[in-house]
Amino acid sequence: MKKVESSTVRANLITRSLIPENKETPIQFLKDDNVSDKLFYRRNHFSYPNFLTSFYYLPIEGFVYSSKTFSLEEILTFPPKTLKVVLECAGDKRDLFKPKVFGEQWEKGAISHGSWKGVPLRTLLQFTGLHADAKEIVVEGYDVGERTDSNEIVHFSRSLPLEKALDSNTIIAYEYNGYPIPFKHGYPLRLIVPGWYAMASVKWIKRIKVIDKKFKGPFQSVDYVYYPHEDNNNESFPVTTINVNSTIQKPLDMQILNTGIHEIKGIAWTGVGKITKVDISLDNGATWNACQFTSSTENYAWTHWSYIWEIKEQGEHTILIKATDSEGNVQPEKPMWNRKGYGYNAIERIKVKIE
Amino acid sequence: MKKVESSTVRANLITRSLIPENKETPIQFLKDDNVSDKLFYRRNHFSYPNFLTSFYYLPIEGFVYSSKTFSLEEILTFPPKTLKVVLECAGDKRDLFKPKVFGEQWEKGAISHGSWKGVPLRTLLQFTGLHADAKEIVVEGYDVGERTDSNEIVHFSRSLPLEKALDSNTIIAYEYNGYPIPFKHGYPLRLIVPGWYAMASVKWIKRIKVIDKKFKGPFQSVDYVYYPHEDNNNESFPVTTINVNSTIQKPLDMQILNTGIHEIKGIAWTGVGKITKVDISLDNGATWNACQFTSSTENYAWTHWSYIWEIKEQGEHTILIKATDSEGNVQPEKPMWNRKGYGYNAIERIKVKIE
Repeated sequence: MKKVESSTVRANLITRSLIPENKETPIQFLKDDNVSDKLFYRRNHFSYPNFLTSFYYLPIEGFVYSSKTFSLEEILTFPPKTLKVVLECAGDKRDLFKPKVFGEQWEKGAISHGSWKGVPLRTLLQFTGLHADAKEIVVEGYDVGERTDSNEIVHFSRSLPLEKALDSNTIIAYEYNGYPIPFKHGYPLRLIVPGWYAMASVKWIKRIKVIDKKFKGPFQSVDYVYYPHEDNNNESFPVTTINVNSTIQKPLDMQILNTGIHEIKGIAWTGVGKITKVDISLDNGATWNACQFTSSTENYAWTHWSYIWEIKEQGEHTILIKATDSEGNVQPEKPMWNRKGYGYNAIERIKVKIE
Repeated sequence: MKKVESSTVRANLITRSLIPENKETPIQFLKDDNVSDKLFYRRNHFSYPNFLTSFYYLPIEGFVYSSKTFSLEEILTFPPKTLKVVLECAGDKRDLFKPKVFGEQWEKGAISHGSWKGVPLRTLLQFTGLHADAKEIVVEGYDVGERTDSNEIVHFSRSLPLEKALDSNTIIAYEYNGYPIPFKHGYPLRLIVPGWYAMASVKWIKRIKVIDKKFKGPFQSVDYVYYPHEDNNNESFPVTTINVNSTIQKPLDMQILNTGIHEIKGIAWTGVGKITKVDISLDNGATWNACQFTSSTENYAWTHWSYIWEIKEQGEHTILIKATDSEGNVQPEKPMWNRKGYGYNAIERIKVKIE
């Protein structure tokens, strides 16, 4: 027999379902700002698509002056843009809603962060022009399948209003962290819509269509809509911009710690503007102290924060974290409950026990 | 560019911590009765031990007539015994206690099942004999480290009363599912104590010591003790036998389903005797129906059960599962709350929504 070395120990994604593949990241392991393929959460509506990338072309059609089909090679010739972007599933933290909401029970790990390189969508639209009646830009993915609420085969498609589509930060990405996009995350081309929940960042782009009306696809008119009421659709509105939010990565909820000095750390992010403040309360919200930023704060990127806590008393302690952004948005005491469980961003709260 | 094949999609263990490595299994993927190393939950108290298995010997000493040290080769010559055994962490389902309990927040996947082959501990003890004052048998593992409650370095050690130690089903195992035990699960020798929570099944056995008193190691006198009270240790008693229990593997809690016919399925297990009955209630416990067994029911093994549900009404539905064993033990309405969160076995309850 040989000398036994302890096998390597690695963190895994948390498997919620395999068909489609839905996996989230244990939040304590989101340390690298260029999250690797291995730890990048996976959120799919259908099985992975199968298509020939050797004949890959991107057509832009519909209410344009002249339709045009771009080859990948051509797209690579345009001036590129690289952005550090948080991608967060609209259902991130769904598990925390009370009363509980049906659907994938995402905890806090349906979020990722990395560097996306591509060409602004507006650059491509300059070649096709826009018809005067153009209202929305529909981006269709190669992923396709049946939904529980109908027997039709549908593609995953999402639209953007012209203003967001023409924003110079809305890009058709072809690289992630300096490499071609991993297949599971949209290879060869993925729309990246910084500041919006990730359902807008369509993977495996098949075609782009300019339309003259409001898009009615089920992933826009049925799903990814905030329904504030349990039993009717009154006051519903679409899911778009990421809410200001934060997550504690260390310590973990219900963890047992020693007396002494502990670093409390985590991330904060928002859809519009920058994170300007992350406050911590150790007395259930009576008083708040500022956490330190341990990374720069930039639009669309997440910010790392830290607080050094010296604790002598044994017993239970509650830790609250509240992030504020440059638009004045603050995490609320209570989340906005909605029937499909999107956009949870209540003040982050965990409990620990000191022994 | 090449044709893109959808990458293979595989279930992962859920990572709770890396040092020590604590990972549980997403319960919907526990299908095989010989759970593979990849899906076998991992529960450690310390980092993986490092030791020379090329010089591996098993000493048995203490209150015996004559101490003896066994070589692996010698152990392999004794008549073997193979058992199908459920290993369940005493903290399995801890996450479900209300009020919540501090510690690893295990959900329902700190359980596994497989075939263990080895030699009964009693066979080895026949070589050493037992001193008349012998009271307990202490099994010490190679895993070692510091605990949060002291600065001493301690080994993971557990004792068994003579009666359980001499039970012909208590074995020193050297094979799991027909192969040498995977390192992370106790290679080369692991004590297997069928019917007891898995802390008793000591991994990486270093030595066995017969003592003339009650063993006081911290993993027996501090941890793995039921403390019924929040603020004192009154009425505490040791964690030993696995409570009768069950888990629903399909559908999942808070899942959204179509109207029509669905198979509800899962597992049931108990520490003493066999599972004799698994009942399901679809009206919050007013009426119960028997589930069908889809596997044999044997001592120490888990039993698969199934129920075909035809559902036409949309809306929310609660599914309750209640297992009974041959000793007349039944899953209780409420769990026995205890400060360290062991032995949760309340009636299994999930909610689904029919659309």
